[in-house]
Amino acid sequence: MPQLHAYLAGPDVFLPEAAAQAAAKIAICARHGFIGISPFNPALDLSQPKSALWRQIFADDLRMMRECDLIIANLTPFRGASADAGTLVELGWFLGAGKPVFGYSNNAVDFAARSQAQRAATPDPLPGLAVEDFGLADNLMIPGALEQSGGALVLPPDGITRAFDSLEVFELCTAAAAGQLYRLSR
Amino acid sequence: MPQLHAYLAGPDVFLPEAAAQAAAKIAICARHGFIGISPFNPALDLSQPKSALWRQIFADDLRMMRECDLIIANLTPFRGASADAGTLVELGWFLGAGKPVFGYSNNAVDFAARSQAQRAATPDPLPGLAVEDFGLADNLMIPGALEQSGGALVLPPDGITRAFDSLEVFELCTAAAAGQLYRLSR
Repeated sequence: MPQLHAYLAGPDVFLPEAAAQAAAKIAICARHGFIGISPFNPALDLSQPKSALWRQIFADDLRMMRECDLIIANLTPFRGASADAGTLVELGWFLGAGKPVFGYSNNAVDFAARSQAQRAATPDPLPGLAVEDFGLADNLMIPGALEQSGGALVLPPDGITRAFDSLEVFELCTAAAAGQLYRLSR
Repeated sequence: MPQLHAYLAGPDVFLPEAAAQAAAKIAICARHGFIGISPFNPALDLSQPKSALWRQIFADDLRMMRECDLIIANLTPFRGASADAGTLVELGWFLGAGKPVFGYSNNAVDFAARSQAQRAATPDPLPGLAVEDFGLADNLMIPGALEQSGGALVLPPDGITRAFDSLEVFELCTAAAAGQLYRLSR
């Protein structure tokens, strides 16, 4: 059967070694039978005006998303209590497009505890704002989307937070996606 | 012509007066020709186990999203540099489902400046993580999604940040959606 294309969403594009991280993820995908597609594009023309550059990045990302069969999203929290904003838009897009959504986080801390920590470091804009507390890894729409799509959310199996750029949990997630999608497709 | 149904996404569900806020948004929608559908559900059975409760909320939200013709998303930053995580999943879902995406923020501060402030209050997990700086209101996937879908992003017109629960910019956004969608549908 043909290999599936996996869109490799995440704040990985902001890493100082983003190109190497993208290459490492693509190699892991290949080991598990996927063609990994990374939104990191080292060939972007950075000399164009900002207003053209961001629109080109968006158009490139949307084209890649349309060409992919599934998403493997890095949901490790980024600059706040939750996952990276762009990654979440992409995750929602895959659910809306009817494609499977897989995700992982290198962070093992409960979302409610992270929300409390965020609130302690930067007070909420109003008193009395609720903290979502369902014992989940992030806002319920995220595990809900993964479950609804037939995908999975993979966390550090020993409950110990990994380094932000660790690929250990990504590989577990990629293996889970392969087990799920290639088994289903037989 | 029939009235369009607008899904009223946002961290408004976490407000201490969430029911009143939902009612106020639905009233504003009615003035602009929309039937507002709020994910805030005061009739939830809170006695069920957490694992059943969050799945019911997700299923209810997804059903409402499917019944709606557009989303009007509150993208005011919530517990971090970016918009609320659940709202972003919903925003992406509407783009993936081919429905128009409208959004607003009560915050007038540039995303790059908010990212720097977040990083100052809570250091990044690794040194050298880039700050996205395109002069936008949030991660480029958000204005990209709104523009791609034929929607719009509405910010405080005078560049002054409003209160977190202000409905002034929401009303401008709702009026923009009405102008766009009812004009297009004639």
